[in-house]
Amino acid sequence: MPRTLAIIGVGLIGGSIGLAVRQRGLAQRVIGVGRRRESLQQARDLGAIDEFSLELVGGVRSADFAVFCTPVDQIAAQVRDVAPHCQPGTILTDAGSTKAQIVNDLEGELPDGVHFVGSHPLAGSEKRGPEFAQADLFENRLVVVTPTEETDPQVLETVSEFWQQLGARIATLDPVTHDRALAATSHLPHLAASALAGILPSSWRPFAATGFRDTTRVAAGDPALWTAIFHHNRDALLGSLARLQDSLAEIQQALEADDTDTIFQWLAKAKQVRDALGS
Amino acid sequence: MPRTLAIIGVGLIGGSIGLAVRQRGLAQRVIGVGRRRESLQQARDLGAIDEFSLELVGGVRSADFAVFCTPVDQIAAQVRDVAPHCQPGTILTDAGSTKAQIVNDLEGELPDGVHFVGSHPLAGSEKRGPEFAQADLFENRLVVVTPTEETDPQVLETVSEFWQQLGARIATLDPVTHDRALAATSHLPHLAASALAGILPSSWRPFAATGFRDTTRVAAGDPALWTAIFHHNRDALLGSLARLQDSLAEIQQALEADDTDTIFQWLAKAKQVRDALGS
Repeated sequence: MPRTLAIIGVGLIGGSIGLAVRQRGLAQRVIGVGRRRESLQQARDLGAIDEFSLELVGGVRSADFAVFCTPVDQIAAQVRDVAPHCQPGTILTDAGSTKAQIVNDLEGELPDGVHFVGSHPLAGSEKRGPEFAQADLFENRLVVVTPTEETDPQVLETVSEFWQQLGARIATLDPVTHDRALAATSHLPHLAASALAGILPSSWRPFAATGFRDTTRVAAGDPALWTAIFHHNRDALLGSLARLQDSLAEIQQALEADDTDTIFQWLAKAKQVRDALGS
Repeated sequence: MPRTLAIIGVGLIGGSIGLAVRQRGLAQRVIGVGRRRESLQQARDLGAIDEFSLELVGGVRSADFAVFCTPVDQIAAQVRDVAPHCQPGTILTDAGSTKAQIVNDLEGELPDGVHFVGSHPLAGSEKRGPEFAQADLFENRLVVVTPTEETDPQVLETVSEFWQQLGARIATLDPVTHDRALAATSHLPHLAASALAGILPSSWRPFAATGFRDTTRVAAGDPALWTAIFHHNRDALLGSLARLQDSLAEIQQALEADDTDTIFQWLAKAKQVRDALGS
């Protein structure tokens, strides 16, 4: 249990961590770190943090546990900036949607006694900002932690317990496997949803009902955040995209041939997978 | 206002029509027609119909208004079977997701005095059966009616008013334009969602969170129903699919070139469209 928890980036995810930690009394002090005073004041008013700092090093140096909830292209640089100022024994983790590049950028780069283990809570939505934070956001959700061969098992245990205390279940994957899995389960769906939304002629918007809305909901996500995710996970995403393109080519061929047996089988397989996930 | 309404196919859509009509007192008598006694009994127990028939002609012949809520590949044949037994002035419509082939199959094929106008309520879900029926399913939803040059304006008016009395808004499109619009807003999203679900390796299912679930929800729809829809709307769907493939090729190229400006613009355009639709 951290005495002083720092949350860098107090939006939907960071704010939810703060709310959960404070409501459960899991830290003596929660410091929010960010760039926009307004947003941090809002997070404090909502009860997500005790105090805040606009200064990265100043905000994090007194913490013994810090979670970076900033865009994936900022996390490694921020961790590297902060680490030399941390006390020995400080544990750093993050909430980024990609892991391989972040973990790789940090491996062997931190001072002795300061530890980083990657985390990715599979929670959140297309919304942004502390006003969407929820104390129960992580309840029964999966958090993937991504240790490497260099990771101290005790530190991994502490990071895992941190998320478990917020109600989450833990899965452990190496960073590269995490990125491949998330390319298929999150980054490719975001890409496909964006393609569907992007090609919709404006005159046909009135005919977009719940099916279209569900299918494209994630496309409302922040384009800057998702550009960084796509950039970080480029290789795995391109691999997933190629599989999607193959599947589309298969159904295209079946449609062109009016081969209803193949169309049925293709749809039935998809239903089977989707049904297995539950609502 | 119909005196006797026949609903052919009393599932989610047909059941919802029945519930809405009966709760609002919009017909003196609601007859459900179907193949499975169990399902019809359930619809009656739920209050969606007054009585039922397992026989198509017998069930519909006494109605002055009938809505066919059967799979799209059955509607035209059922209407043709029934029409010669209907009384002059009877109005027939449907709730199918495709319109061009159905309307085309019926144009000029009905006896004098028996009228068909195509309808498509943009409501429903991946679920099936009268147990999912809701009296308010059509409230504030769009129903597309698809008259042709042959359609009697008075009949079109009656069909439109029928849906309006269930709380729906009306849009009028010719059948081919309807099918093109729905290819983009419904059939292609179903296809894309099914592709995403179909290619997900089973070992990665645990990492499918809300984003994946939203994006692929419609893939749980009945594969037989959707095979018929894809078959009926093959040309428009292939056109929409080609546009999706072009958009995916565009983002693939940007990813390969690590061209983050293009990726950002592509995502930003999609967000703009999705935001315009609202939640």
